[in-house]
Parts: sequence; C-alpha cells; structure tokens
Amino acid sequence: MNTEQELHPDDVQQHLREVQALLARQKVAEDLVHRQDMPRHELVENLVHKQHEAALRNKLDTLHSADVAYILEALPLEERLYVWDLVKAERDGDILLEVSDAVRESLIETMEPHELKAAAETLDADELADLAPDLPPEIIQDVYQSLDTEGREQLRAAMSYPEDSVGALMDFDMVTVRENVTLEVVLRYLRRFEELPDHTDKLFVIDRDEHLMGILSLESLLINDPEKEVSEVMRDETVISFSPDDPADDAAQAFERYDLVSAPVVDRQKRVIGRVTVADVVDFIREESEAEILSHAGLREEEDIFASVWDSVKNRWAWLAVNLVTAFIASRVIGAFEGSIERLVALAALMPIVAGIGGNSGNQTITMIVRAIAMGQVKQSAMQRLLKKELGVALFNGVVWGGLLGVLTWWLYGSASLGMVMTAAMTLNLLLAAFAGVTIPMLRQRLGGDPAIGGSVMITALTDSGGFFIFLGLATLFLL
Amino acid sequence: MNTEQELHPDDVQQHLREVQALLARQKVAEDLVHRQDMPRHELVENLVHKQHEAALRNKLDTLHSADVAYILEALPLEERLYVWDLVKAERDGDILLEVSDAVRESLIETMEPHELKAAAETLDADELADLAPDLPPEIIQDVYQSLDTEGREQLRAAMSYPEDSVGALMDFDMVTVRENVTLEVVLRYLRRFEELPDHTDKLFVIDRDEHLMGILSLESLLINDPEKEVSEVMRDETVISFSPDDPADDAAQAFERYDLVSAPVVDRQKRVIGRVTVADVVDFIREESEAEILSHAGLREEEDIFASVWDSVKNRWAWLAVNLVTAFIASRVIGAFEGSIERLVALAALMPIVAGIGGNSGNQTITMIVRAIAMGQVKQSAMQRLLKKELGVALFNGVVWGGLLGVLTWWLYGSASLGMVMTAAMTLNLLLAAFAGVTIPMLRQRLGGDPAIGGSVMITALTDSGGFFIFLGLATLFLL
Repeated sequence: MNTEQELHPDDVQQHLREVQALLARQKVAEDLVHRQDMPRHELVENLVHKQHEAALRNKLDTLHSADVAYILEALPLEERLYVWDLVKAERDGDILLEVSDAVRESLIETMEPHELKAAAETLDADELADLAPDLPPEIIQDVYQSLDTEGREQLRAAMSYPEDSVGALMDFDMVTVRENVTLEVVLRYLRRFEELPDHTDKLFVIDRDEHLMGILSLESLLINDPEKEVSEVMRDETVISFSPDDPADDAAQAFERYDLVSAPVVDRQKRVIGRVTVADVVDFIREESEAEILSHAGLREEEDIFASVWDSVKNRWAWLAVNLVTAFIASRVIGAFEGSIERLVALAALMPIVAGIGGNSGNQTITMIVRAIAMGQVKQSAMQRLLKKELGVALFNGVVWGGLLGVLTWWLYGSASLGMVMTAAMTLNLLLAAFAGVTIPMLRQRLGGDPAIGGSVMITALTDSGGFFIFLGLATLFLL
Repeated sequence: MNTEQELHPDDVQQHLREVQALLARQKVAEDLVHRQDMPRHELVENLVHKQHEAALRNKLDTLHSADVAYILEALPLEERLYVWDLVKAERDGDILLEVSDAVRESLIETMEPHELKAAAETLDADELADLAPDLPPEIIQDVYQSLDTEGREQLRAAMSYPEDSVGALMDFDMVTVRENVTLEVVLRYLRRFEELPDHTDKLFVIDRDEHLMGILSLESLLINDPEKEVSEVMRDETVISFSPDDPADDAAQAFERYDLVSAPVVDRQKRVIGRVTVADVVDFIREESEAEILSHAGLREEEDIFASVWDSVKNRWAWLAVNLVTAFIASRVIGAFEGSIERLVALAALMPIVAGIGGNSGNQTITMIVRAIAMGQVKQSAMQRLLKKELGVALFNGVVWGGLLGVLTWWLYGSASLGMVMTAAMTLNLLLAAFAGVTIPMLRQRLGGDPAIGGSVMITALTDSGGFFIFLGLATLFLL
C-alpha cells in the first residue's frame, strides 16, 4: 500500500529530502554557482552525472504539481532553476500557479517567451487571470489571440474583477441542468462526461435564459428516485449565490459559516456566470491571514527565503522608514526634557519602561478591536461600552503593574516621590494606550479606511512619545 | 428570489441589525440592567412588549445556527442571554458548537444541567468531543450513559486524541462500499439513504475487515457505466489517507495542496475509522491563524469583546508581566551607564532610536524565518545561507539608515563623533537583530520546541537591552 502513502503530507518533506540528495550527489550547487551567467541548456549539458539527472527527472514526474511547487520554493535559486528546467514543459503552467509570488517571479524571469506562452496556453481562463499580473503583456496578448470567443470572453471577465472580489475567485467550469427533466435524464447526461469539474457537489438548475432557478445537489440526485423531476428535488430556497462584485471575504465567511463546497456566481439578472469552490476559498483564507501576519511585522509580501539581499531590502524598507520617523519624534520629545534628565538621570533609565508597557498594552487592545470590527460585530454605537471596558482594564493594570514598579523604583533610587511619578505615569500611559487602541480603528472604520492597516505602528508611536512626555513631564513638575 | 438572499453573507449583519432593532424597541437592555440578579425566566416574564419578543423568536427560528451564533457573539452579555433564552432548545447544541470559546462559556454558565444534557444529546460523538472541555464532567457522564455501545466507543475515541491531531478533526459519518459490486448496486444502495453525510464527495471502498481498498468518487460513480464494478473505476493508488495521530496541520496542508473535500482516516491496520472533511479543515486553518495573530499581541485567546474587565485582565496579564521584566532589565542596562548619560545627556534622547529600529528589523527577520520553518522548507543546513543573507540586509540597512541618523545627530548636536557612534551602534544592533532573528527560531526547532512562541518577545528584549548597551557602551568608550 505504499502507493497509498504517495501523497501523504509528511512525504512532501520526504520528497524534498530525496531531491536535495540527488542534487547534492551531482554537486549541482557548486557546478552552477560558477556558471551562473551561462544559458540554462548549456548548464544542463555541462552536468556530470547524467544518470542522477534522469533519476531526478523521473522523481519529479511522479510528483503532484503542488509538491513540485513546494520543492521549488524550498531550493536555493540556482538549484531551483536547475530543477525547474527538468520539469515537463506541459506542467509549467500548473506549477507556476502553485508557487508563491516571489518564487514565481524568479522562475518566470528565466523562461523564454515561447515557453511562457506554451505554459499559459495550458491554463483555464480563471487560472490565466491569476497568473496574468506576473506575465509580460505581450504574452497575454498572444494567448488571448489564440483563444476562442468564449475563452476570450471569460478571460476578459476574469481579468476585469478587482483582486479581492468574488469575481477574482470565480471559475467557469460548472454543470447546469433544466428543472423540467427527470433525474434519470440527468444521470444519463452526466455519463456523457469524461470528467466533472473539480468540487462538483451540486448542479446548477437554470431556465433557458440561464437564470438560476435552484441547485440540485449530487446528494439529492443520488438518494432520490430517478423517476422524479429535478424541480421536485432541487433546492430553490436558501440557495447561497454570490455576485462577482461581492468582497471575496464575504464569500469566504459564508463558505465557513455554511460549510459550502461550491456556490454559483450570478450577475444582476440572476444569470449564472460562474462558480466559487472551497479550494479557492481555502487559498484565499490562507493568503489573507498570511498577509495579516506579515504586515504585523511590516513585510510587504511573502519573501522567497532565498531572495537576494536587495529583494529583501525592498520588501522591508518602507516599514523601517516609518518606524525611524516615529522613533525620531519620540527622541525629540526626550530631547525637550534633557534639562530634567541632566538633573535626575534616573529618569533616563526608567522612561523606556513606561513607553514599552504602554505599547504592549495598546497593541493588545487594538488587535482585539480590529478583529471584532473585521467580523462586523462592532457597531460604532458599541464604542462607548468598549472604551469603558478597556479603560477599566488599563486602570487596573496601571494600579497593579504601575504600583509594583513604583515600589521597585522607590527601592532602587530611594525616592518615594520618584516611585509615585512612575506609578502615575504608567497608569496614564496605559489609559492613553487603551483610549487610542479603541478610537484609532473605530475612527478608521468611520472614515471608511481599513481599520487594520498600520494601527500597530500608530499606537506604538503614540505610546512611545506619549509615555516619554507623560513621565518626563510629571517628573519635571513634581520632582525638580 | 429573496429566499435566495436568505443566506447571503451580507445578510448576517442585516440580521444582526434587525435583532438589535427588536431588542432596542423593547428597551430590553435597560430592563435587564436593573434585573441582572433576577432568574432568567422571571426576566422574560417581566418584559413589556410580548409581541416584539414573538417577532424576535420568529426571526431567530428562520436563521441558520451559525448566524444565531454570530449574533450572540455581537450582543452585550445581558442582551445575549435574553436572546439565547428565546432560541429553540433543540438548537442549543448546534449553536454552542458555532460560538467562540469565550462566548460559549458565558452561555453555558447560565444553563441548567438538564438544559445542557438535552443540548449535548442532540450532537454527534465528534461534536460532543469538541464541546466536552467546556461542559461539566457530570453532564458528559450522563450523556455517555445515554449512548449506545457504538456511540460510547466513538465518543471515547474522539475524546482520546490530542487537540491538534487529525483524530480531533475526525468525524464518524461516512459511506463505505465493497469493491466487487457494480455501480448499479451502489446507486441502488445510496437511494436507501435519507441523506448522505455532509461533504460526501467519495465513498470509501473496504474489504470485509474494513481495510481501506480505495475510494470511489461520486464523480466516477456518476460518469461511468452502471454495469461496471467498483473495482474497475475506484482509485486505489494515490489515495490520501491520514492516521488519527497525524498532526492536524499536516492534514490541513494536504487538503490545501491537493484540494480535498474529504479524506479517510485509517488505523495502523489500515482499517477505516473515520474521515476528515474540508469544513473541519477550514475551521482549523482559521483558528490556527487567529491564534497566531492573537499571540503576536500577547492575547492568550480570542476575547469576548463584551467580556468583563476581569476576564480581559486574565487574558492579557501574562504577556504584560513578561514585557515588564524585559523592560526592567533594559532599564537596568541604562542604569549602568547613568554616569555617561549625566555627562552627555543627548545619549538619553538617542538611545531609544537604536533600540527601536533593532526591534523592528529583528521582528521582520524572525517572522519570515518562522513561517519558512512552519512550512518545513528550511533545513538546519540552510541556516548559514540564511544567516549570511539576513546579515547582509542588516548591514545594508545599518549603513543607510544608520548613516542617515548619524548625519541627523551630527546636525542636531553638532558633534560628528556622536553621529559616528550613532551609525555604528545602529549597524551593530541591526546585525544583532538579524543574527538573533535567524538563530532563535532555528535553535528552538533543533531543540524540538515551537519556533513561533515568544520569539518576538525574546528578540525585542534582546534588541532593547542590546541596543542600549551597544550605544551607551560605544559612547562611553569613544566620547567620554
């Protein structure tokens, strides 16, 4: 039963190890490092152990495109390109769809126009649309010319929708039936198919003008008496359908909430124009959360871990620049109190604590509020209630942690008043953090912006500068 | 076609608004705030506008359990409990499964034992197992007693698997067939069903000892000639199956990679014991990324946005405590240089910049490395290569941003040497951040820990203390 194991998840890494072993054996890496500038076909000529190359090629042929993609992502550039060269040309399209954007670029850069065109022509309209942004326009043009009218229509449609819309997730392969036929007829009709589209769990019931009348699940097709008519067993109430302009995120939430496998997409006249499958939704969900996690650390996009230093720098500099500015502002706030610090240098050692804890606590608040807003569960009217709660939490933490630090400060510097300033400053900064953590995303939303973007940077900037100002300010007022 | 709209994603929020409107009209909120201590049935008695209550009950009855759950999450406690009271008892179980953990607790707290038991009894073994952690043990016992032998067997099995294993995602409803029968027989067999299990896209082909022989997709059942035997059309190679002990994350990756809808789970003897469906996988993926995003901000779990101040404090204090400790250490590092700061107070204003930028850059590195490790694409052997790259990026940023700040410092304080110290300190701290960003997760992994947990805290602590030490140290050496 080891065929059973063929696609077992653990085995991708097994496959990866095998490929790496084969690569190592023929010292490809070294071989290539010295020949980077040489065209790829020559490279291949130059390789020593042909039999290893054959073994590698065979290995790759047995692998699912997604696994090849996984392996390509895990290989350093020169080995990646060498392996890419061994992959059967007709699989290029599928694999390009599977790899991460960064890796896709690295592969496309090395492909000849005719290779790219050939790869593109193996894809469906919706897949092509996903790939299009990374392809040179002239390739798209060529492929477009080579399509039939329907294909061109679909490609134009697929490319016309914004990235995060249902239209961008939509594919065009679906099976439609009429409501006035018997299940027997449907069963016979299906037997004429070579294969059904992936994730076909339901057939779309349409009238002669392609209006969606309801859905016939394969389940009801199978469990009902074949003599029955489609109209008797189809579901026409509570059919979930989307418009191509719906936000993809709404579709994703609906798929999650109602456990869908596929759903029809209809135009304004309720004509069926495509469908969304759970596979697309899963990819979308994964990409969304990836993007969110990366953006928290100020990475613009997922990085090819073997990207050049320069590519990485480009991916990261914007966030560093922003933080540099906010840090500089905070530094000027301190600068304004240099006189006080000169007279009581302990302030310099204590101020980062006040700023830091404020930032942490503020990020906790804003993270929670942003998530609640994203779920659409927070109305503006709830703001006051949330504000009260968050301020309560902040006050509690201020008194407890601030108090603790006040005592520590007293003990360290033997000054009760300095300790009290410490406690007061921490409490005030925590209150500031809570206030900002609730209001920033709420205002963002009211102003129609995305409440998530950059909130963490803003609140950290505020609690840094604010923390320094409050602490040094109080100290100047009461201690000097 | 507004029935079509019934479940349209946007409408959940529409439903929510309607419910809130109904609640508002009868001033439930106020009504209840004053009666918090009164038992719930009395509360309901006391409510003024009975007709609004009826309207509300009807509204709730038309809604999908997932939508009711969504609404409950979005309501403040007292309104939530009031609505919860109006929901048909037989739906309690489904809805408890759908709500977030925090909200689930708030609902279960208010339920009588007999209500809980009734709710639990409406659930399948695998659903019950998901709910079990939140239920009082005696309830579980009662329900367990009420089950038949198979049910008990399944419940025991479902509860025996660790949270992040395939066994925990597994359900027990599946359709199995023998390989030596014709498709016609299978079709007739299926017509005997009232309904098929959710997400049945394939039937599991087993021998008389329940060993998995292959899978018969509904597709091949439908497109092939009914005279054919199952064995002729079933897939027995590259059948993806899982063991209940596999990490759930492997299963999730396999579902994503191979676009699965359902997959069999087999024991060591390859006997089919259950299956995993894409619905469970989608929920798992969402929860995983939720948890990751929350943990970045140091939130232990998703918070009921209307939780009491005290609950929130409990959810957040641990992270604040850790950060307090690290901040305190950083403060002591500064304390060690108070002498230098006294003589050159500008240092106090500049040091936070060095520390802050180091932290940001370090978090970018560690985030990227952790993700690559999680995908299993980084071998320990790649460490050197990654280290070289990250150090390269750090050096570049150090020279560019550090240089820029050096000039700014020079201009601000009119001291070129101070500017040079600034540049050097930033470069060194960025190098430190890059080094830690690569090595911390790598070592974590080698030591068999989770590379993700707390990495961000560690690196920030390091770049804070390290940044202060490097900057103040260099200044002490070269400027004083």
